[in-house]
Amino acid sequence: MKPEDRLVERLAALALPGGPVTIGPGDDAAVVAREAGLLAATTDMLVEGVDFLPDEDPERLGRRAAAVNLSDLAAMGAEPEFFLLAVGFPAERGEDFPLSIARGACDRAAEFGARLVGGDLSSAPQVVITAAFWGRPAGRPLTRTGACAGDVVYVSGHPGEAAAGLRLAQKIAAFHSPAARFAELSSDHQRRLLAAFHDPSPRVVLGLLLAREAFATAAIDVSDGLGVDAGRLARASGVRLVLDRERLPVSSALLAFAGAEELDPVDFVVGGGDDYELLFTVRPDDAERLDERASASKLAIRRIGRAVPGAGAGLSGPRGEREIAELGHDHFEAVR
Amino acid sequence: MKPEDRLVERLAALALPGGPVTIGPGDDAAVVAREAGLLAATTDMLVEGVDFLPDEDPERLGRRAAAVNLSDLAAMGAEPEFFLLAVGFPAERGEDFPLSIARGACDRAAEFGARLVGGDLSSAPQVVITAAFWGRPAGRPLTRTGACAGDVVYVSGHPGEAAAGLRLAQKIAAFHSPAARFAELSSDHQRRLLAAFHDPSPRVVLGLLLAREAFATAAIDVSDGLGVDAGRLARASGVRLVLDRERLPVSSALLAFAGAEELDPVDFVVGGGDDYELLFTVRPDDAERLDERASASKLAIRRIGRAVPGAGAGLSGPRGEREIAELGHDHFEAVR
Repeated sequence: MKPEDRLVERLAALALPGGPVTIGPGDDAAVVAREAGLLAATTDMLVEGVDFLPDEDPERLGRRAAAVNLSDLAAMGAEPEFFLLAVGFPAERGEDFPLSIARGACDRAAEFGARLVGGDLSSAPQVVITAAFWGRPAGRPLTRTGACAGDVVYVSGHPGEAAAGLRLAQKIAAFHSPAARFAELSSDHQRRLLAAFHDPSPRVVLGLLLAREAFATAAIDVSDGLGVDAGRLARASGVRLVLDRERLPVSSALLAFAGAEELDPVDFVVGGGDDYELLFTVRPDDAERLDERASASKLAIRRIGRAVPGAGAGLSGPRGEREIAELGHDHFEAVR
Repeated sequence: MKPEDRLVERLAALALPGGPVTIGPGDDAAVVAREAGLLAATTDMLVEGVDFLPDEDPERLGRRAAAVNLSDLAAMGAEPEFFLLAVGFPAERGEDFPLSIARGACDRAAEFGARLVGGDLSSAPQVVITAAFWGRPAGRPLTRTGACAGDVVYVSGHPGEAAAGLRLAQKIAAFHSPAARFAELSSDHQRRLLAAFHDPSPRVVLGLLLAREAFATAAIDVSDGLGVDAGRLARASGVRLVLDRERLPVSSALLAFAGAEELDPVDFVVGGGDDYELLFTVRPDDAERLDERASASKLAIRRIGRAVPGAGAGLSGPRGEREIAELGHDHFEAVR
């Protein structure tokens, strides 16, 4: 048997057929049984040196590749079902490398009910991971387009922690030393920030609640920074989002890190990226009921602003309103 | 608007919603309507310098990325419906570059009824394209597992032409000169070989015929060489495939090229790769009816051997039988 086939067999063993999976990995395509209805589908590519640091742990990379796709399904209010995984990697990393990536992706996906059904392996000069996930919208799909002036703006979790985690990871890598260098930051705080970057939590449960009970008028996952993604939701809906600086969720870990770096933690919150939190809008009449439901389900969400007539996204604070829709990460600043 | 968003808008314009597409590109995930039944899904990654030469025409790359995935659906007997496209590229190539890739992919997919519904763009040190296609099996899905001893082995088209085309393209690139160098090869033959490599034709129509009328007992698409893929089908089915050297389809273009290179054309046919032809097995009782149907539909297929008890794949010729299951392309020869 050729090395490639041995690898595919080992990969297929991670994804045994059964239930709706009629044909799993190892044939030309996967085949699954489907009921009638809607199908939500998404794909994301992660590139070494662009989306993650070189020499990242492969299992964690796989978890992250799954999480960023699961986050897209969460932002549509869709229940994850299946995924395909393509991995390009330098052959000298050995065949356990892509398998570890696949194992990580399978583990993360399984937490949300999604199963690997197929994939592709390719040699490549650096590591590239593309996953494609699909699932079933749990109600009317959550789009970016339904926000109305007057709606309450919510965000989940703690955006900004991932950007701080990336910065911390880069420093640790640059100093070739573990956390000891950052004595001003507790190890709990360091772990929390690093985990926010390396192993983000897709907000699938929240997305399903928002879709099933039609709580959200619009939703987007925050991947390129709260400011940029607020601007995207605003543009798609034809409104302006105004976030209230005082209401932004700033964790104690981010506060401590920003303090040590002598930076404004709010710059991380609105200008960071890789958060994979949900930003969404809710009719004022529904907000209280949502708060109760979220609290009962231990889902961390927070009212951070309002949709108003206009365009773009602003951050209001004691010194007035600042535009934030053009902040954050852009993959193609250099593209003209 | 950020460069990334402008790019996504231009990409989305290639794939207007409508029909079963409820939500197309530009939101967190695509949403399409589905009837109950089976869903076949596949993904393939193409990497610059591994799967294609640097400085390849982007539109043609897109066509090829679509074709290799369509070929997988063809080998399952599935009718293509939708696809997702992820492109990584160096920002300095400019934003028309990924759009040309997408346009090529959309054009090729449209020929077979498939539509782009979403995607992802990422910067990357070199070009990487991952497509994920899905569709509906037209009958019982064609797997690799159903061949029985006694079945007739068929192949479509002219495997080996793509490998010759790659070799020709590499020579043209190395000499920095167009076809003039290869005076011994007519320009028609050159065009044919180059097209076989650059712009393969997925055998979707054939796959649908084989599945709808249950002609094939097993099928695989020939991507890594006829020998290797015959070995894969044989292993999955628990039989041995014996191909008859005299029956292999050798085109006049391949014959001329191999002659000029002083090589055996059969080595290209069984040991080449990137063919995207279908290799399949048929019960002896069905073979004549299939030949008539294929001829009426102008589908080029050919009986090239038999399934027999045993394992592996062999090529029988005047000097006996030679093992061919370990020939051909392997992406991970170096992986241990």
